[in-house]
Amino acid sequence: MKVSARNALKGIVKSVVTGAVNDEVTVEISPELVITAVITKTSAENLGLAVGKEVYALIKSSDVIIAVD
Amino acid sequence: MKVSARNALKGIVKSVVTGAVNDEVTVEISPELVITAVITKTSAENLGLAVGKEVYALIKSSDVIIAVD
Amino acid sequence: MKVSARNALKGIVKSVVTGAVNDEVTVEISPELVITAVITKTSAENLGLAVGKEVYALIKSSDVIIAVD
Amino acid sequence: MKVSARNALKGIVKSVVTGAVNDEVTVEISPELVITAVITKTSAENLGLAVGKEVYALIKSSDVIIAVD
Amino acid sequence: MKVSARNALKGIVKSVVTGAVNDEVTVEISPELVITAVITKTSAENLGLAVGKEVYALIKSSDVIIAVD
Amino acid sequence: MKVSARNALKGIVKSVVTGAVNDEVTVEISPELVITAVITKTSAENLGLAVGKEVYALIKSSDVIIAVD
Repeated sequence: MKVSARNALKGIVKSVVTGAVNDEVTVEISPELVITAVITKTSAENLGLAVGKEVYALIKSSDVIIAVD
Repeated sequence: MKVSARNALKGIVKSVVTGAVNDEVTVEISPELVITAVITKTSAENLGLAVGKEVYALIKSSDVIIAVD
Repeated sequence: MKVSARNALKGIVKSVVTGAVNDEVTVEISPELVITAVITKTSAENLGLAVGKEVYALIKSSDVIIAVD
Repeated sequence: MKVSARNALKGIVKSVVTGAVNDEVTVEISPELVITAVITKTSAENLGLAVGKEVYALIKSSDVIIAVD
Repeated sequence: MKVSARNALKGIVKSVVTGAVNDEVTVEISPELVITAVITKTSAENLGLAVGKEVYALIKSSDVIIAVD
Repeated sequence: MKVSARNALKGIVKSVVTGAVNDEVTVEISPELVITAVITKTSAENLGLAVGKEVYALIKSSDVIIAVD
């Protein structure tokens, strides 16, 4: 499947914290860049997420905010 | 200002495409990673965005989708 | 690719309206249900979107609002 | 109330899973289409959500991602 | 219609800037608070938005970021 | 830091409800206006959120829905 989301960052799952409804998943894109995602617990189960699994973090461009110092 | 958005990626503006309402901004985080953002034209003007400017791409963790091959 | 977005609706592109930065795409899921998406013009081009093409509309569950009459 | 969200899908609540902060609500739009929403527990209580209740799932068009096989 | 979005701010439309796909709408909530929204041009037309019209700005709580100085 | 999010509402934290993954934070902008945010528990901890703290609620304009009665 190819998606319209402009940002697809490949990485490795570093941690999964499980809640009642949502899980927090961290993905190491590079040694300097870790992305945090919150997805439903059911999604995390459906995808078989576990530490060490290769995944993509997808981000729609309209969800990105720009900041300057 | 410190924000709750878990993902803050530092980079350099590579391009700004201007529309009537929204602009598309690309930010090079590293040679292998370019992030695309869509923000309002007024925001891009307020921030003084231009090619070469140092910026942060901020992404709330609830806006990140995880995908697996 | 399998995604964490819980909602994946299969349908046929009915229209594409092109702007400077964003395109508006309508997708017929069934005769009674048309979904409207706004994605970047570049994404629409990358995906080769055109009337009649089979696509999926993906929606993260945290982006769904519930309303009652 | 009439909303700017372009997508309003009428359906019946099939399940409500309650967490500390968020609830996961599934809504059957048709026998082939179930939409999952994550909303705050307080919202679910305010709306009186329960299995069998008629609701609308509202989705802003900028939150829809398009994918192709 | 009653919505799950926790934040509903009543105000008066101050401006509508029209693009090819999206419009930018500003809403005065109080003399000190103006909210900016980007919605599709078709939505703005469907709602009959014009300067002076009374509207609500709805914001889902998962779309709010918290910042501190 | 200056952000592209067009809406920055200054206020005082009124409550923090803690979940396993997400916290719900309410912010009083004025006596008549309270904004509710859902952010990760880790973000709330990183920002040192507590009742009485001065914060900003940031909202991207593409996340605002307009409604009319």
